[in-house]
Amino acid sequence: MINRASRPDLNAIRAAHERIQPYVHRTPVVTCLGLDRWLGMRLFFKCENLQKAGAFKSRGACNAVFSLDEEQAPRGVVTHSSGNHAGALARAAQLRGIPAYIVMPTTAPQVKVAAVREYGGQITFCEPTLVAREATARTVMQQTGAALIHPYDDEWIIAGQATVAVEFLEQVPELELVIAPVGGGGLLAGILLAVKALRPDVRVVAAEPQNADDAYRSWKSGSLVPAGPPGTIADGLLTSLGEKTLPIILELVDDIWLASEAAISRAMRRILERTKQVVEPSAAVPLAALVEHPDRQRWSERSVGLVLSGGNVDLDRISQLVLGGDSP
Amino acid sequence: MINRASRPDLNAIRAAHERIQPYVHRTPVVTCLGLDRWLGMRLFFKCENLQKAGAFKSRGACNAVFSLDEEQAPRGVVTHSSGNHAGALARAAQLRGIPAYIVMPTTAPQVKVAAVREYGGQITFCEPTLVAREATARTVMQQTGAALIHPYDDEWIIAGQATVAVEFLEQVPELELVIAPVGGGGLLAGILLAVKALRPDVRVVAAEPQNADDAYRSWKSGSLVPAGPPGTIADGLLTSLGEKTLPIILELVDDIWLASEAAISRAMRRILERTKQVVEPSAAVPLAALVEHPDRQRWSERSVGLVLSGGNVDLDRISQLVLGGDSP
Repeated sequence: MINRASRPDLNAIRAAHERIQPYVHRTPVVTCLGLDRWLGMRLFFKCENLQKAGAFKSRGACNAVFSLDEEQAPRGVVTHSSGNHAGALARAAQLRGIPAYIVMPTTAPQVKVAAVREYGGQITFCEPTLVAREATARTVMQQTGAALIHPYDDEWIIAGQATVAVEFLEQVPELELVIAPVGGGGLLAGILLAVKALRPDVRVVAAEPQNADDAYRSWKSGSLVPAGPPGTIADGLLTSLGEKTLPIILELVDDIWLASEAAISRAMRRILERTKQVVEPSAAVPLAALVEHPDRQRWSERSVGLVLSGGNVDLDRISQLVLGGDSP
Repeated sequence: MINRASRPDLNAIRAAHERIQPYVHRTPVVTCLGLDRWLGMRLFFKCENLQKAGAFKSRGACNAVFSLDEEQAPRGVVTHSSGNHAGALARAAQLRGIPAYIVMPTTAPQVKVAAVREYGGQITFCEPTLVAREATARTVMQQTGAALIHPYDDEWIIAGQATVAVEFLEQVPELELVIAPVGGGGLLAGILLAVKALRPDVRVVAAEPQNADDAYRSWKSGSLVPAGPPGTIADGLLTSLGEKTLPIILELVDDIWLASEAAISRAMRRILERTKQVVEPSAAVPLAALVEHPDRQRWSERSVGLVLSGGNVDLDRISQLVLGGDSP
């Protein structure tokens, strides 16, 4: 049996930070005077695109893998993911020297499959439906005894992702607002728990694509609204909130801002051009939502932190967005 | 009269570092496991693409502008440049509150003109020839009494650029080799002076496009070979070495490696895809030269530092190179 805290508190988050410190980067924060002048505020970008395995997911994955007890660990870990969690979990398992079983849909992008293989993950392919993915993961668990590490609905994962905020507040103590993207809510829930414990004066806003606004609708209605069919380029933000992330978000989030598809690709271009950072579309959603927010004047001349959540994007995709987007 | 040291020594470099510290970034160093595995060495990228005004040029420009004495400073500074030095000098002058007169050819890219204007620089346009640029700069000097700040053949500039190496050695003490691009030689000369004073055990190699190999030929022949007509995408490296940079380079550089155009655009893609950094073609020349160097096995398993010198590149250009290059 695995023993987990119900909702990670500040001690659990600090323990996670110490636990993962040998295995992840303390990512840099970049700024850009041109963007500051344009929006009339001080922007700080936390570069999780430069994190190990290219996304904040390495924090949660390392925390989960290195939290397993000596009895459980040798049987390994299992997850179903076609995204950054898959590569991050395979990498973390490789670092601990235990097996990682990754269930991926047959439609997963080649680059993600290659990343999992590069880190020694053992892939089981399945049909591209949630039912097939969950059933396959269960079968693998039964066969191997591996521990299921859910991509976001897991206390270890949430505590690991929370370390983004711990560092961000240390690096930029003057932050008054943090904007983070929300998909399944692991990153957002972690940031909320850390910020509200450490610096309750700092506001936390979630950013979500308009075309995948299930977190927004869940928050407005006070109960889980599942994600609809995919309709956004921000392919990291397609998942529904989970049983563990939902209540944390309902209780603590200050606001949820939406971003149009056009704003997301413009923001991606601006980040590329102005901050010199390659980010995946999901990571551009906070800037896009800020730009489109009708009430952003309220944050004039103030210090705003944006989480660049990941950088795993094909060059073809960048080139498509660079060529295809509106002019900046 | 302006009083300058003949060749900056370690004291001058340390003084420059202290002088510019309020005005420039201590840029981060990024690494990439995928590239390390591919080349079989440990690579460290010093991100001057994230420097203020988008290039290492801000270091030298700030050092020069803040070294002017109280009598000279109010009359301002003048330079001729269509590149990163122009924007960096305008920014430095704005920070000190003095005028910057920038002579630019009528053919200068709009984005560079806009950068100079954004920093309050006063532009005088001239014909796109070296003769016209120098003559125009002289006229502006005579009319205004401004101090000429040459883009690279200047001790203050060299001392400022040297601070890249001071930081790099502090950040990565295990460095055994530093590779820097060479154009006019201000960055290279500065790095050579700093590294050979601080850590004579560390090798310094210059990287130059094969199609603009005037520094290589100058080094081989022991005297200045002027740059030929432009034939490289690395448009920051088209200038000839200067009277002050040449002797430093002849005396101290350990080797000069050349890079083909195909290797430069492949390296730019790899840096974009793997380190998540947007860099200009000139900044990709060190990686390109390393990849193509026949004897690179010698550096197997060793720690190699590469200077990503700047990030000022149009998105159209990136897209062209991303689409147009070979597959990585």
